[in-house]
Amino acid sequence: MLRNKIAVAPSSGRHESLRDAVLAGGGDLVDPHDAVGLVWADFHRPQDLGPVLANATSVEWVALPFAGIEPYIPLIRQRTDLQWTCARGVYARPVAEHAIALATAGLRHIVGYAKEQRWAEPHGRMLVDGSITVFGGGGITAEIIRLLQGWNCAVTVVRRSASPMPGAARTVQPDLAVDAVAGADAVILAQALTNETRGSIGTAVFDAMASHAWLVNVARGGVVDHEALHQALIEGSIGGAALDVTDPEPLPEGHWLWGFPNVVITPHIANTPEMGIPLLAAHIEDNVKRWIAGKSVAGMVDPVAGY
Amino acid sequence: MLRNKIAVAPSSGRHESLRDAVLAGGGDLVDPHDAVGLVWADFHRPQDLGPVLANATSVEWVALPFAGIEPYIPLIRQRTDLQWTCARGVYARPVAEHAIALATAGLRHIVGYAKEQRWAEPHGRMLVDGSITVFGGGGITAEIIRLLQGWNCAVTVVRRSASPMPGAARTVQPDLAVDAVAGADAVILAQALTNETRGSIGTAVFDAMASHAWLVNVARGGVVDHEALHQALIEGSIGGAALDVTDPEPLPEGHWLWGFPNVVITPHIANTPEMGIPLLAAHIEDNVKRWIAGKSVAGMVDPVAGY
Repeated sequence: MLRNKIAVAPSSGRHESLRDAVLAGGGDLVDPHDAVGLVWADFHRPQDLGPVLANATSVEWVALPFAGIEPYIPLIRQRTDLQWTCARGVYARPVAEHAIALATAGLRHIVGYAKEQRWAEPHGRMLVDGSITVFGGGGITAEIIRLLQGWNCAVTVVRRSASPMPGAARTVQPDLAVDAVAGADAVILAQALTNETRGSIGTAVFDAMASHAWLVNVARGGVVDHEALHQALIEGSIGGAALDVTDPEPLPEGHWLWGFPNVVITPHIANTPEMGIPLLAAHIEDNVKRWIAGKSVAGMVDPVAGY
Repeated sequence: MLRNKIAVAPSSGRHESLRDAVLAGGGDLVDPHDAVGLVWADFHRPQDLGPVLANATSVEWVALPFAGIEPYIPLIRQRTDLQWTCARGVYARPVAEHAIALATAGLRHIVGYAKEQRWAEPHGRMLVDGSITVFGGGGITAEIIRLLQGWNCAVTVVRRSASPMPGAARTVQPDLAVDAVAGADAVILAQALTNETRGSIGTAVFDAMASHAWLVNVARGGVVDHEALHQALIEGSIGGAALDVTDPEPLPEGHWLWGFPNVVITPHIANTPEMGIPLLAAHIEDNVKRWIAGKSVAGMVDPVAGY
């Protein structure tokens, strides 16, 4: 069986960009029962994938082109005879850029000036030659470090793993989070939402932050203790908050967060479809090339960890 | 006459950091009539410098610690017997960061979201993996290129000199400016204000820009043809404008620029005193050392070019 036989399924979907990516990677588009590799393109139909695979006995590799794959974990745990990949980290680049854009928009008071109708007082802090603390040690953080490589900005990373984050000035574990944020110009949240991280960014963190420092959230709204954030904003113990994610979403009109001049809410758009589709296509094209060449494919799923 | 005799004038000003820098560079602080070098520290008093120099017959070097020196050009052209330096490029790093912060705040619609009191529609473009065109081939542009080194952002530079800008994907001369802006996600103005550049960013440039592209001005308000900008904003032929400099400054209340949702004005704060004073002090200290040692000083003014 030739390794370049790749299917994109289910057939009902409009998956032109994924089909184009398979072809660009050197794949030959076939039906699932003739395929060695299968790209499953409809996130909302996990229940249909099992039967398709049961009838596609040549398939060895299943590509799930999604960043989060929770609904597929039971099937993945049943079919450990297959290689499974996901699009983990594929969207890290746009999210990392948004985090830096929010941090500089806050620190340089662009958020405040945007609300003005008059020539206002001078304000502003640099991120260049400054320092940030990032929560989470995944792909977004790696991209933040890469984007800041010319900025002479010291990055402290707070992550569960004890292994140092490449390119970070300092890596610490969550029990040292309060120390880790002291002195930083911006605190960027890019961790997964888990039972451990839920509500973990609270009073202790805000009290330890510099009074000019901005909080930037590109993770999930639930990692922040919002009552503690409210207090910190009222007391001025932080410089401001730039939030791409909130709890709940959408944030209702009249919510207290809308009332602060030093807060900006972007509506969960760090990675828009326009940004993400080309990145996903590049990921699939690259993985098809790797697969055909017999190399290891990117984004291998760990069935035990569940991502 | 000893070369270390340096004056800081006018005496009315509070120029401690400049005096400290002169001393740190090995200078001996004296009055202008005893000085060989003169640091003129009040940008707003060009009319007073000519008489001071007329009475300071030993002065050979005049340091103007300003990035832009338009009001001083007539005097410089009269007194070509003197060596003139300016602080061209000294503030490049904070200004370059502000230019990138404004570009990303515009492209990612942070400017628009900051003005909202509700969860708004998704918007946003990336600068990462995109392209920009920068007018001017000086220190700010060099720093922009350096800050973007991890961004995979293609930089086209429009400059008078035919020599390629290091790190730029493409360098063109001003006669090709219209071609140079086509397709760019942001057009950043970082050129000097001269007779040639005054009003040079006008209809032809705006018509050639992509309809999503943001104009970012960190140069001088006068390089933009503001009537043409007004038309471009009304017609939607550009994505928006992020202006740290305007004409006039301060921009009066009620000016039409305040009325556009896709415009942000920052009040000439790309380089604030907090950011700039240490950079300027380092520049003066270094130049005083060079001057005393008989080496060439940095930031020599070209009286013909006007910067």
